[in-house]
Amino acid sequence: MLLESLIDKATQAAKKTIAVAAAEDQEVIDAVIDALERNLGHFILYGNEEKIATILECKKCSWDQKVKIVHADSIAEAAELAVKAVFNKEANVLMKGNIPTNIFLKAVLNKEFGLRTGNVLSHVAAFEVPDFDRLIFVTDAAMNIAPDLEQKAGIAKNAVAIARSLGIEIPKVAPIAAVEVVNPSMQATMDAAALTLMNKRGQITGCVIDGPLALDNAISELAAEHKGIHSDVAGNADILLVPAIEVGNALYKSLVYFAKAKVGAVIAGAKVPIVLTSRADTAESKLYSLALALSSANE
Amino acid sequence: MLLESLIDKATQAAKKTIAVAAAEDQEVIDAVIDALERNLGHFILYGNEEKIATILECKKCSWDQKVKIVHADSIAEAAELAVKAVFNKEANVLMKGNIPTNIFLKAVLNKEFGLRTGNVLSHVAAFEVPDFDRLIFVTDAAMNIAPDLEQKAGIAKNAVAIARSLGIEIPKVAPIAAVEVVNPSMQATMDAAALTLMNKRGQITGCVIDGPLALDNAISELAAEHKGIHSDVAGNADILLVPAIEVGNALYKSLVYFAKAKVGAVIAGAKVPIVLTSRADTAESKLYSLALALSSANE
Repeated sequence: MLLESLIDKATQAAKKTIAVAAAEDQEVIDAVIDALERNLGHFILYGNEEKIATILECKKCSWDQKVKIVHADSIAEAAELAVKAVFNKEANVLMKGNIPTNIFLKAVLNKEFGLRTGNVLSHVAAFEVPDFDRLIFVTDAAMNIAPDLEQKAGIAKNAVAIARSLGIEIPKVAPIAAVEVVNPSMQATMDAAALTLMNKRGQITGCVIDGPLALDNAISELAAEHKGIHSDVAGNADILLVPAIEVGNALYKSLVYFAKAKVGAVIAGAKVPIVLTSRADTAESKLYSLALALSSANE
Repeated sequence: MLLESLIDKATQAAKKTIAVAAAEDQEVIDAVIDALERNLGHFILYGNEEKIATILECKKCSWDQKVKIVHADSIAEAAELAVKAVFNKEANVLMKGNIPTNIFLKAVLNKEFGLRTGNVLSHVAAFEVPDFDRLIFVTDAAMNIAPDLEQKAGIAKNAVAIARSLGIEIPKVAPIAAVEVVNPSMQATMDAAALTLMNKRGQITGCVIDGPLALDNAISELAAEHKGIHSDVAGNADILLVPAIEVGNALYKSLVYFAKAKVGAVIAGAKVPIVLTSRADTAESKLYSLALALSSANE
Protein backbone atom coordinates (compact mmCIF):
# COMPACT_ATOMS: atom_id res chain seq x y z
CA MET A 1 0.00 0.00 0.00
CA LEU A 2 1.45 3.29 -1.02
CA LEU A 3 0.78 6.90 -0.19
CA GLU A 4 -1.39 7.73 -3.17
CA SER A 5 -3.71 4.91 -2.12
CA LEU A 6 -4.24 6.67 1.22
CA ILE A 7 -5.60 9.63 -0.73
CA ASP A 8 -7.91 7.30 -2.66
CA LYS A 9 -9.02 5.73 0.59
CA ALA A 10 -9.82 9.09 2.17
CA THR A 11 -11.61 10.21 -0.98
CA GLN A 12 -13.79 7.12 -1.19
CA ALA A 13 -14.59 6.91 2.51
CA ALA A 14 -17.31 8.84 4.32
CA LYS A 15 -16.00 12.37 4.50
CA LYS A 16 -14.28 13.29 7.75
CA THR A 17 -13.69 16.77 9.12
CA ILE A 18 -10.35 18.46 9.80
CA ALA A 19 -10.16 21.26 12.35
CA VAL A 20 -7.36 23.71 11.48
CA ALA A 21 -5.91 25.87 14.25
CA ALA A 22 -4.83 29.32 13.01
CA ALA A 23 -5.58 28.98 9.29
CA GLU A 24 -4.87 32.62 8.33
CA ASP A 25 -1.81 31.81 6.23
CA GLN A 26 -1.24 31.41 2.53
CA GLU A 27 0.63 28.11 2.78
CA VAL A 28 -1.91 26.59 5.16
CA ILE A 29 -4.79 27.59 2.89
CA ASP A 30 -2.86 26.19 -0.10
CA ALA A 31 -2.68 22.83 1.67
CA VAL A 32 -6.39 23.02 2.52
CA ILE A 33 -7.29 23.79 -1.09
CA ASP A 34 -5.09 20.94 -2.36
CA ALA A 35 -6.99 18.61 -0.04
CA LEU A 36 -10.36 20.01 -1.13
CA GLU A 37 -9.47 19.58 -4.79
CA ARG A 38 -8.70 15.92 -4.09
CA ASN A 39 -12.00 15.68 -2.19
CA LEU A 40 -10.26 14.45 0.96
CA GLY A 41 -12.71 15.81 3.51
CA HIS A 42 -14.36 18.80 5.15
CA PHE A 43 -12.58 21.63 6.95
CA ILE A 44 -13.32 23.95 9.84
CA LEU A 45 -10.82 26.81 9.72
CA TYR A 46 -10.25 28.59 13.05
CA GLY A 47 -8.57 31.97 13.16
CA ASN A 48 -8.97 35.51 11.88
CA GLU A 49 -12.13 35.21 9.80
CA GLU A 50 -11.42 38.21 7.59
CA LYS A 51 -7.89 37.14 6.74
CA ILE A 52 -8.91 33.55 6.08
CA ALA A 53 -11.78 34.65 3.84
CA THR A 54 -9.51 37.04 1.96
CA ILE A 55 -6.92 34.35 1.24
CA LEU A 56 -9.62 31.87 0.22
CA GLU A 57 -11.21 34.43 -2.10
CA CYS A 58 -7.88 35.25 -3.64
CA LYS A 59 -7.92 31.69 -4.79
CA LYS A 60 -11.22 32.41 -6.55
CA CYS A 61 -12.77 29.23 -5.39
CA SER A 62 -15.93 28.56 -3.57
CA TRP A 63 -16.07 25.65 -1.16
CA ASP A 64 -19.20 26.65 0.71
CA GLN A 65 -20.29 23.09 1.26
CA LYS A 66 -17.00 21.83 2.58
CA VAL A 67 -15.41 24.71 4.44
CA LYS A 68 -16.56 26.52 7.54
CA ILE A 69 -14.70 29.49 8.96
CA VAL A 70 -14.89 30.15 12.71
CA HIS A 71 -13.47 33.41 13.99
CA ALA A 72 -10.97 33.53 16.83
CA ASP A 73 -9.44 36.71 18.26
CA SER A 74 -6.02 35.17 18.80
CA ILE A 75 -4.02 32.14 17.67
CA ALA A 76 -4.28 30.72 21.21
CA GLU A 77 -8.06 30.97 21.00
CA ALA A 78 -7.99 29.42 17.53
CA ALA A 79 -6.07 26.46 18.94
CA GLU A 80 -8.49 26.10 21.85
CA LEU A 81 -11.52 26.20 19.59
CA ALA A 82 -10.04 23.67 17.17
CA VAL A 83 -9.13 21.31 19.98
CA LYS A 84 -12.60 21.70 21.54
CA ALA A 85 -14.17 20.87 18.18
CA VAL A 86 -12.26 17.59 18.17
CA PHE A 87 -13.07 17.00 21.84
CA ASN A 88 -16.78 17.47 21.01
CA LYS A 89 -16.47 15.13 18.00
CA GLU A 90 -17.26 17.86 15.49
CA ALA A 91 -13.93 17.04 13.82
CA ASN A 92 -11.97 13.80 13.28
CA VAL A 93 -8.50 15.25 12.70
CA LEU A 94 -6.62 18.23 14.13
CA MET A 95 -4.24 20.28 12.00
CA LYS A 96 -1.76 22.92 13.10
CA GLY A 97 -1.87 26.12 11.07
CA ASN A 98 0.34 29.18 11.41
CA ILE A 99 0.93 28.96 15.15
CA PRO A 100 4.01 28.14 17.24
CA THR A 101 4.07 24.46 18.17
CA ASN A 102 4.23 25.11 21.92
CA ILE A 103 1.04 27.23 21.92
CA PHE A 104 -0.68 24.62 19.75
CA LEU A 105 0.38 21.73 22.00
CA LYS A 106 -0.70 23.61 25.12
CA ALA A 107 -4.27 23.46 23.84
CA VAL A 108 -3.87 19.82 22.77
CA LEU A 109 -2.70 18.89 26.26
CA ASN A 110 -5.29 20.97 28.13
CA LYS A 111 -6.60 18.88 31.02
CA GLU A 112 -10.20 20.00 30.66
CA PHE A 113 -10.92 19.80 26.95
CA GLY A 114 -7.61 18.49 25.58
CA LEU A 115 -6.87 15.32 23.65
CA ARG A 116 -4.70 13.33 26.06
CA THR A 117 -5.15 9.57 26.18
CA GLY A 118 -2.53 8.71 28.80
CA ASN A 119 -0.07 7.64 26.12
CA VAL A 120 2.93 9.68 25.00
CA LEU A 121 2.49 11.85 21.90
CA SER A 122 4.83 10.73 19.14
CA HIS A 123 5.68 11.40 15.52
CA VAL A 124 4.95 8.67 12.97
CA ALA A 125 6.19 9.08 9.40
CA ALA A 126 5.14 6.80 6.55
CA PHE A 127 7.57 6.56 3.64
CA GLU A 128 7.04 5.35 0.12
CA VAL A 129 10.58 4.37 -0.85
CA PRO A 130 11.49 3.71 -4.49
CA ASP A 131 11.67 -0.06 -5.14
CA PHE A 132 9.94 -0.93 -1.85
CA ASP A 133 6.48 -2.43 -2.21
CA ARG A 134 5.29 -1.48 1.24
CA LEU A 135 5.17 1.63 3.38
CA ILE A 136 8.11 1.98 5.78
CA PHE A 137 7.18 3.73 9.02
CA VAL A 138 9.81 5.62 11.02
CA THR A 139 9.16 6.69 14.60
CA ASP A 140 9.98 8.99 16.39
CA ALA A 141 11.88 11.41 14.18
CA ALA A 142 10.57 14.69 15.53
CA MET A 143 8.86 14.72 18.92
CA ASN A 144 10.60 12.72 21.66
CA ILE A 145 14.26 13.63 22.03
CA ALA A 146 15.75 10.74 24.00
CA PRO A 147 12.88 8.43 24.98
CA ASP A 148 13.35 5.99 27.85
CA LEU A 149 12.06 2.42 27.66
CA GLU A 150 8.54 3.29 28.79
CA GLN A 151 8.32 6.11 26.26
CA LYS A 152 9.67 3.82 23.53
CA ALA A 153 6.93 1.32 24.37
CA GLY A 154 4.38 4.12 24.01
CA ILE A 155 5.96 5.24 20.72
CA ALA A 156 5.76 1.65 19.44
CA LYS A 157 2.09 1.36 20.43
CA ASN A 158 1.21 4.62 18.65
CA ALA A 159 2.92 3.55 15.42
CA VAL A 160 1.33 0.09 15.59
CA ALA A 161 -2.11 1.67 15.97
CA ILE A 162 -1.52 3.84 12.89
CA ALA A 163 -0.23 0.91 10.82
CA ARG A 164 -3.15 -1.29 11.89
CA SER A 165 -5.68 1.41 11.04
CA LEU A 166 -4.28 1.32 7.50
CA GLY A 167 -4.90 -2.41 7.23
CA ILE A 168 -1.50 -3.81 8.22
CA GLU A 169 -2.91 -6.44 10.58
CA ILE A 170 0.21 -7.44 12.49
CA PRO A 171 2.88 -4.81 11.82
CA LYS A 172 6.49 -5.93 12.15
CA VAL A 173 8.40 -3.58 14.44
CA ALA A 174 12.22 -3.34 14.41
CA PRO A 175 13.82 -1.42 17.28
CA ILE A 176 16.89 -0.06 15.52
CA ALA A 177 20.44 0.00 16.91
CA ALA A 178 23.90 0.12 15.37
CA VAL A 179 24.28 -3.65 15.78
CA GLU A 180 22.02 -6.68 16.02
CA VAL A 181 23.51 -8.01 19.26
CA VAL A 182 22.75 -6.96 22.82
CA ASN A 183 25.60 -4.82 24.13
CA PRO A 184 25.34 -3.24 27.60
CA SER A 185 27.46 -0.30 26.48
CA MET A 186 24.82 0.56 23.86
CA GLN A 187 21.54 1.49 25.57
CA ALA A 188 19.67 1.25 22.25
CA THR A 189 20.37 -2.50 22.15
CA MET A 190 19.26 -3.00 25.76
CA ASP A 191 15.98 -1.15 25.21
CA ALA A 192 15.44 -3.03 21.95
CA ALA A 193 15.81 -6.36 23.75
CA ALA A 194 13.42 -5.18 26.45
CA LEU A 195 10.82 -4.08 23.89
CA THR A 196 11.11 -7.46 22.17
CA LEU A 197 10.36 -9.24 25.42
CA MET A 198 7.58 -6.79 26.32
CA ASN A 199 5.94 -7.87 23.08
CA LYS A 200 6.45 -11.56 23.85
CA ARG A 201 4.94 -11.10 27.33
CA GLY A 202 1.87 -9.32 26.01
CA GLN A 203 2.83 -5.85 27.26
CA ILE A 204 2.77 -4.50 23.70
CA THR A 205 0.19 -6.22 21.50
CA GLY A 206 -1.11 -6.27 17.95
CA CYS A 207 2.36 -6.46 16.43
CA VAL A 208 5.53 -8.50 16.41
CA ILE A 209 8.64 -6.77 17.74
CA ASP A 210 12.18 -8.07 17.24
CA GLY A 211 15.35 -6.17 17.97
CA PRO A 212 18.00 -5.00 18.26
CA LEU A 213 18.42 -4.87 14.51
CA ALA A 214 20.67 -2.65 12.44
CA LEU A 215 18.78 -0.88 9.68
CA ASP A 216 20.04 -3.24 6.96
CA ASN A 217 19.00 -6.34 8.92
CA ALA A 218 15.58 -4.78 9.43
CA ILE A 219 14.77 -4.06 5.81
CA SER A 220 16.93 -6.40 3.72
CA GLU A 221 16.36 -10.17 3.89
CA LEU A 222 19.78 -10.68 2.32
CA ALA A 223 21.53 -8.57 4.97
CA ALA A 224 19.69 -10.45 7.73
CA GLU A 225 20.71 -13.76 6.17
CA HIS A 226 24.35 -12.63 5.98
CA LYS A 227 24.27 -12.08 9.74
CA GLY A 228 22.46 -15.37 10.38
CA ILE A 229 19.52 -13.61 12.01
CA HIS A 230 16.39 -15.74 12.32
CA SER A 231 13.46 -13.49 13.04
CA ASP A 232 9.88 -12.77 11.99
CA VAL A 233 10.81 -9.13 11.60
CA ALA A 234 14.32 -9.08 10.10
CA GLY A 235 14.29 -8.18 6.44
CA ASN A 236 10.59 -7.32 6.48
CA ALA A 237 10.11 -4.61 9.08
CA ASP A 238 7.17 -2.26 8.64
CA ILE A 239 8.02 0.04 11.54
CA LEU A 240 11.55 1.26 12.28
CA LEU A 241 11.60 2.34 15.92
CA VAL A 242 14.66 4.56 16.32
CA PRO A 243 16.46 5.00 19.65
CA ALA A 244 16.77 8.81 19.60
CA ILE A 245 15.57 11.85 17.70
CA GLU A 246 18.94 12.31 15.94
CA VAL A 247 18.67 8.83 14.42
CA GLY A 248 15.10 9.35 13.26
CA ASN A 249 15.75 12.81 11.93
CA ALA A 250 18.82 11.77 9.91
CA LEU A 251 16.97 8.71 8.60
CA TYR A 252 13.92 10.82 7.69
CA LYS A 253 16.00 13.39 5.82
CA SER A 254 18.14 10.71 4.18
CA LEU A 255 15.01 9.01 2.85
CA VAL A 256 13.63 12.26 1.46
CA TYR A 257 16.81 13.90 0.14
CA PHE A 258 19.01 10.94 -0.79
CA ALA A 259 16.51 8.15 -1.54
CA LYS A 260 13.80 10.40 -3.06
CA ALA A 261 11.16 8.83 -0.87
CA LYS A 262 7.70 10.35 -0.50
CA VAL A 263 6.45 10.92 3.01
CA GLY A 264 3.40 11.71 5.07
CA ALA A 265 3.49 12.11 8.84
CA VAL A 266 1.20 12.56 11.82
CA ILE A 267 1.43 13.02 15.57
CA ALA A 268 -0.12 9.97 17.19
CA GLY A 269 -1.07 9.18 20.78
CA ALA A 270 -3.78 11.83 21.16
CA LYS A 271 -7.51 11.15 20.80
CA VAL A 272 -7.22 11.87 17.07
CA PRO A 273 -4.34 12.04 14.59
CA ILE A 274 -2.72 15.46 14.50
CA VAL A 275 -1.20 16.98 11.37
CA LEU A 276 1.80 19.14 12.12
CA THR A 277 3.36 20.10 8.82
CA SER A 278 6.18 22.60 8.49
CA ARG A 279 6.93 25.23 5.86
CA ALA A 280 9.75 23.14 4.46
CA ASP A 281 7.33 20.32 3.57
CA THR A 282 6.30 20.05 -0.06
CA ALA A 283 2.65 20.45 -1.05
CA GLU A 284 2.64 16.74 -1.89
CA SER A 285 3.95 15.80 1.53
CA LYS A 286 1.30 17.95 3.26
CA LEU A 287 -1.37 16.18 1.24
CA TYR A 288 0.01 12.76 2.19
CA SER A 289 0.09 13.79 5.86
CA LEU A 290 -3.57 14.79 5.70
CA ALA A 291 -4.45 11.55 3.90
CA LEU A 292 -2.53 9.53 6.50
CA ALA A 293 -4.36 11.32 9.32
CA LEU A 294 -7.78 10.87 7.69
CA SER A 295 -7.11 7.21 6.87
CA SER A 296 -6.15 6.44 10.45
CA ALA A 297 -8.84 8.58 12.14
CA ASN A 298 -12.02 7.14 13.60
CA GLU A 299 -15.30 8.11 12.00
CA MET B 1 35.02 13.27 -7.70
CA LEU B 2 33.41 9.88 -7.54
CA LEU B 3 34.47 6.47 -6.33
CA GLU B 4 35.48 5.02 -9.68
CA SER B 5 37.93 7.90 -10.05
CA LEU B 6 39.66 6.78 -6.84
CA ILE B 7 40.35 3.47 -8.56
CA ASP B 8 41.75 5.33 -11.56
CA LYS B 9 43.86 7.46 -9.25
CA ALA B 10 45.30 4.42 -7.49
CA THR B 11 45.91 2.68 -10.80
CA GLN B 12 47.75 5.61 -12.32
CA ALA B 13 49.81 6.49 -9.24
CA ALA B 14 53.05 4.87 -8.18
CA LYS B 15 52.01 1.48 -6.89
CA LYS B 16 51.58 1.24 -3.16
CA THR B 17 51.64 -1.89 -1.02
CA ILE B 18 48.82 -3.34 1.06
CA ALA B 19 49.66 -5.63 4.00
CA VAL B 20 46.82 -8.10 4.63
CA ALA B 21 46.54 -9.67 8.09
CA ALA B 22 45.21 -13.26 7.96
CA ALA B 23 44.62 -13.63 4.23
CA GLU B 24 43.75 -17.35 4.28
CA ASP B 25 40.15 -16.88 3.28
CA GLN B 26 38.28 -17.17 0.00
CA GLU B 27 36.48 -13.83 0.28
CA VAL B 28 39.63 -11.98 1.29
CA ILE B 29 41.56 -13.45 -1.62
CA ASP B 30 38.67 -12.60 -3.94
CA ALA B 31 38.97 -8.96 -2.88
CA VAL B 32 42.75 -9.07 -3.36
CA ILE B 33 42.36 -10.54 -6.85
CA ASP B 34 39.75 -7.93 -7.78
CA ALA B 35 42.25 -5.25 -6.75
CA LEU B 36 45.07 -6.92 -8.68
CA GLU B 37 42.94 -7.14 -11.79
CA ARG B 38 42.30 -3.41 -11.57
CA ASN B 39 46.05 -2.91 -11.01
CA LEU B 40 45.48 -1.07 -7.74
CA GLY B 41 48.73 -1.99 -6.01
CA HIS B 42 50.96 -4.66 -4.54
CA PHE B 43 50.05 -7.06 -1.73
CA ILE B 44 51.83 -8.82 1.09
CA LEU B 45 49.59 -11.59 2.38
CA TYR B 46 50.27 -12.68 5.96
CA GLY B 47 48.90 -15.93 7.27
CA ASN B 48 48.94 -19.65 6.63
CA GLU B 49 51.16 -19.86 3.57
CA GLU B 50 49.86 -23.19 2.33
CA LYS B 51 46.22 -22.21 2.59
CA ILE B 52 46.80 -18.83 0.96
CA ALA B 53 48.74 -20.43 -1.90
CA THR B 54 46.05 -23.05 -2.39
CA ILE B 55 43.27 -20.47 -2.64
CA LEU B 56 45.35 -18.30 -4.97
CA GLU B 57 46.13 -21.29 -7.19
CA CYS B 58 42.50 -22.29 -7.30
CA LYS B 59 42.02 -19.02 -9.02
CA LYS B 60 44.51 -20.14 -11.69
CA CYS B 61 46.23 -16.85 -11.74
CA SER B 62 49.82 -15.93 -11.32
CA TRP B 63 50.65 -12.64 -9.66
CA ASP B 64 54.31 -13.36 -8.85
CA GLN B 65 55.35 -9.77 -9.37
CA LYS B 66 52.68 -8.19 -7.26
CA VAL B 67 51.94 -10.63 -4.46
CA LYS B 68 54.17 -11.87 -1.70
CA ILE B 69 53.03 -14.46 0.84
CA VAL B 70 54.57 -14.41 4.31
CA HIS B 71 53.83 -17.33 6.59
CA ALA B 72 52.48 -16.86 10.10
CA ASP B 73 51.66 -19.66 12.53
CA SER B 74 48.59 -17.94 13.94
CA ILE B 75 46.21 -15.14 13.07
CA ALA B 76 47.62 -13.08 15.94
CA GLU B 77 51.10 -13.48 14.47
CA ALA B 78 49.77 -12.59 11.03
CA ALA B 79 48.34 -9.37 12.45
CA GLU B 80 51.61 -8.54 14.21
CA LEU B 81 53.67 -9.15 11.07
CA ALA B 82 51.33 -7.09 8.90
CA VAL B 83 51.36 -4.21 11.37
CA LYS B 84 55.16 -4.40 11.64
CA ALA B 85 55.46 -4.25 7.84
CA VAL B 86 53.50 -0.98 7.92
CA PHE B 87 55.54 0.27 10.88
CA ASN B 88 58.74 -0.46 8.91
CA LYS B 89 57.31 1.27 5.83
CA GLU B 90 57.25 -1.88 3.76
CA ALA B 91 53.53 -1.29 3.24
CA ASN B 92 51.36 1.82 2.84
CA VAL B 93 47.98 0.40 3.79
CA LEU B 94 46.84 -2.21 6.32
CA MET B 95 43.95 -4.55 5.58
CA LYS B 96 42.11 -6.86 7.96
CA GLY B 97 41.64 -10.39 6.64
CA ASN B 98 39.80 -13.26 8.29
CA ILE B 99 40.57 -12.34 11.89
CA PRO B 100 38.39 -11.03 14.73
CA THR B 101 38.50 -7.24 14.92
CA ASN B 102 39.70 -7.18 18.55
CA ILE B 103 42.76 -9.35 17.81
CA PHE B 104 43.51 -7.24 14.74
CA LEU B 105 43.19 -3.95 16.63
CA LYS B 106 45.35 -5.26 19.46
CA ALA B 107 48.25 -5.45 17.00
CA VAL B 108 47.36 -2.05 15.50
CA LEU B 109 47.45 -0.44 18.95
CA ASN B 110 50.62 -2.23 20.13
CA LYS B 111 52.77 0.33 21.94
CA GLU B 112 56.06 -0.95 20.55
CA PHE B 113 55.44 -1.47 16.84
CA GLY B 114 51.81 -0.34 16.49
CA LEU B 115 50.30 2.43 14.41
CA ARG B 116 49.05 4.91 17.03
CA THR B 117 49.35 8.60 16.29
CA GLY B 118 47.80 10.01 19.45
CA ASN B 119 44.53 10.64 17.67
CA VAL B 120 41.39 8.55 18.06
CA LEU B 121 40.79 5.81 15.47
CA SER B 122 37.59 6.46 13.55
CA HIS B 123 35.55 5.15 10.66
CA VAL B 124 35.24 7.32 7.56
CA ALA B 125 32.84 6.29 4.79
CA ALA B 126 32.75 7.97 1.37
CA PHE B 127 29.43 7.73 -0.48
CA GLU B 128 28.66 8.24 -4.12
CA VAL B 129 24.97 9.14 -3.97
CA PRO B 130 22.83 9.14 -7.11
CA ASP B 131 22.30 12.72 -8.36
CA PHE B 132 25.03 14.15 -6.09
CA ASP B 133 28.09 15.44 -7.92
CA ARG B 134 30.44 15.12 -4.98
CA LEU B 135 31.41 12.45 -2.48
CA ILE B 136 29.51 12.66 0.81
CA PHE B 137 31.59 11.52 3.79
CA VAL B 138 29.90 10.12 6.90
CA THR B 139 31.78 9.72 10.15
CA ASP B 140 31.72 7.84 12.50
CA ALA B 141 29.25 5.10 11.61
CA ALA B 142 31.07 2.09 13.00
CA MET B 143 33.86 2.64 15.52
CA ASN B 144 33.13 5.18 18.27
CA ILE B 145 29.86 4.48 20.08
CA ALA B 146 29.07 7.74 21.86
CA PRO B 147 32.01 10.08 21.31
CA ASP B 148 32.50 13.04 23.65
CA LEU B 149 33.51 16.46 22.35
CA GLU B 150 37.23 15.70 22.31
CA GLN B 151 36.64 12.46 20.44
CA LYS B 152 34.34 14.24 17.99
CA ALA B 153 37.11 16.75 17.33
CA GLY B 154 39.47 13.84 16.61
CA ILE B 155 36.88 12.19 14.37
CA ALA B 156 36.49 15.46 12.46
CA LYS B 157 40.27 15.79 12.03
CA ASN B 158 40.57 12.26 10.68
CA ALA B 159 37.81 12.76 8.11
CA VAL B 160 39.23 16.12 7.08
CA ALA B 161 42.64 14.54 6.51
CA ILE B 162 41.09 11.86 4.29
CA ALA B 163 39.06 14.38 2.29
CA ARG B 164 42.07 16.66 1.84
CA SER B 165 44.24 13.76 0.66
CA LEU B 166 41.68 13.23 -2.11
CA GLY B 167 42.07 16.82 -3.26
CA ILE B 168 39.18 18.50 -1.42
CA GLU B 169 41.22 21.46 -0.22
CA ILE B 170 38.93 22.91 2.44
CA PRO B 171 36.29 20.30 3.25
CA LYS B 172 32.99 21.57 4.61
CA VAL B 173 32.08 19.76 7.82
CA ALA B 174 28.51 19.63 9.18
CA PRO B 175 28.07 18.36 12.73
CA ILE B 176 24.63 16.79 12.44
CA ALA B 177 21.82 17.10 14.98
CA ALA B 178 18.03 16.83 14.80
CA VAL B 179 17.69 20.63 14.62
CA GLU B 180 19.79 23.57 13.48
CA VAL B 181 19.48 25.54 16.72
CA VAL B 182 21.48 25.13 19.92
CA ASN B 183 19.35 23.39 22.52
CA PRO B 184 20.86 22.48 25.89
CA SER B 185 18.58 19.45 26.16
CA MET B 186 20.17 18.03 22.99
CA GLN B 187 23.86 17.31 23.58
CA ALA B 188 24.45 16.87 19.84
CA THR B 189 23.63 20.54 19.31
CA MET B 190 25.91 21.68 22.13
CA ASP B 191 28.84 19.65 20.81
CA ALA B 192 28.14 20.86 17.27
CA ALA B 193 28.31 24.47 18.43
CA ALA B 194 31.55 23.77 20.30
CA LEU B 195 33.12 22.10 17.23
CA THR B 196 32.12 25.10 15.12
CA LEU B 197 33.91 27.44 17.51
CA MET B 198 36.92 25.11 17.82
CA ASN B 199 37.26 25.52 14.07
CA LYS B 200 36.94 29.30 14.27
CA ARG B 201 39.59 29.45 17.02
CA GLY B 202 42.05 27.34 15.06
CA GLN B 203 41.72 24.20 17.18
CA ILE B 204 40.56 22.21 14.16
CA THR B 205 42.14 23.40 10.93
CA GLY B 206 42.12 22.74 7.19
CA CYS B 207 38.33 22.77 6.98
CA VAL B 208 35.29 24.86 7.71
CA ILE B 209 32.91 23.52 10.32
CA ASP B 210 29.39 24.82 10.87
CA GLY B 211 26.73 23.22 13.00
CA PRO B 212 24.40 22.20 14.42
CA LEU B 213 22.68 21.37 11.14
CA ALA B 214 19.94 18.88 10.46
CA LEU B 215 20.80 16.56 7.58
CA ASP B 216 18.59 18.40 5.10
CA ASN B 217 20.13 21.79 5.95
CA ALA B 218 23.57 20.24 5.51
CA ILE B 219 23.08 18.82 2.03
CA SER B 220 20.25 20.82 0.44
CA GLU B 221 20.69 24.53 -0.30
CA LEU B 222 16.93 24.85 -0.64
CA ALA B 223 16.31 23.32 2.78
CA ALA B 224 18.93 25.62 4.32
CA GLU B 225 17.31 28.62 2.65
CA HIS B 226 13.88 27.60 3.95
CA LYS B 227 15.29 27.78 7.48
CA GLY B 228 17.10 31.04 6.80
CA ILE B 229 20.48 29.53 7.61
CA HIS B 230 23.45 31.57 6.41
CA SER B 231 26.52 29.39 6.45
CA ASP B 232 29.52 28.36 4.37
CA VAL B 233 28.65 24.75 5.02
CA ALA B 234 24.83 24.54 4.88
CA GLY B 235 23.62 22.95 1.67
CA ASN B 236 27.12 22.01 0.58
CA ALA B 237 28.58 19.82 3.29
CA ASP B 238 31.26 17.33 2.31
CA ILE B 239 31.55 15.65 5.70
CA LEU B 240 28.55 14.70 7.85
CA LEU B 241 29.81 14.33 11.41
CA VAL B 242 27.17 12.32 13.27
CA PRO B 243 26.68 12.58 17.04
CA ALA B 244 26.50 8.85 17.82
CA ILE B 245 27.05 5.46 16.22
CA GLU B 246 23.29 4.79 15.88
CA VAL B 247 22.89 7.91 13.74
CA GLY B 248 25.86 7.05 11.53
CA ASN B 249 24.89 3.44 11.16
CA ALA B 250 21.28 4.19 10.21
CA LEU B 251 22.46 6.88 7.78
CA TYR B 252 25.06 4.52 6.26
CA LYS B 253 22.54 1.73 5.77
CA SER B 254 19.88 4.12 4.50
CA LEU B 255 22.29 5.43 1.87
CA VAL B 256 23.20 1.93 0.72
CA TYR B 257 19.81 0.19 0.93
CA PHE B 258 17.32 2.99 0.29
CA ALA B 259 19.30 5.50 -1.80
CA LYS B 260 21.37 2.92 -3.73
CA ALA B 261 24.57 4.78 -2.95
CA LYS B 262 28.00 3.25 -3.53
CA VAL B 263 30.42 3.30 -0.64
CA GLY B 264 34.04 2.82 0.32
CA ALA B 265 35.29 3.13 3.89
CA VAL B 266 38.49 3.18 5.91
CA ILE B 267 39.60 3.43 9.49
CA ALA B 268 41.51 6.69 9.89
CA GLY B 269 43.65 8.08 12.69
CA ALA B 270 46.41 5.48 12.57
CA LYS B 271 49.74 5.99 10.80
CA VAL B 272 48.19 4.58 7.62
CA PRO B 273 44.63 4.03 6.39
CA ILE B 274 43.20 0.71 7.51
CA VAL B 275 40.75 -1.33 5.46
CA LEU B 276 38.30 -3.22 7.62
CA THR B 277 35.70 -4.73 5.31
CA SER B 278 33.04 -7.16 6.45
CA ARG B 279 31.53 -10.21 4.79
CA ALA B 280 28.31 -8.34 4.12
CA ASP B 281 30.17 -5.82 1.93
CA THR B 282 29.83 -6.25 -1.81
CA ALA B 283 32.92 -6.94 -3.94
CA GLU B 284 32.49 -3.46 -5.40
CA SER B 285 32.44 -1.86 -1.97
CA LYS B 286 35.60 -3.72 -0.91
CA LEU B 287 37.33 -2.44 -4.04
CA TYR B 288 36.24 1.13 -3.32
CA SER B 289 37.49 0.82 0.25
CA LEU B 290 40.90 -0.30 -0.98
CA ALA B 291 40.95 2.50 -3.54
CA LEU B 292 40.00 5.04 -0.86
CA ALA B 293 42.77 3.75 1.42
CA LEU B 294 45.38 3.78 -1.35
CA SER B 295 44.33 7.24 -2.56
CA SER B 296 44.66 8.69 0.91
CA ALA B 297 47.84 6.83 1.91
CA ASN B 298 51.27 8.43 1.87
CA GLU B 299 53.82 7.07 -0.58
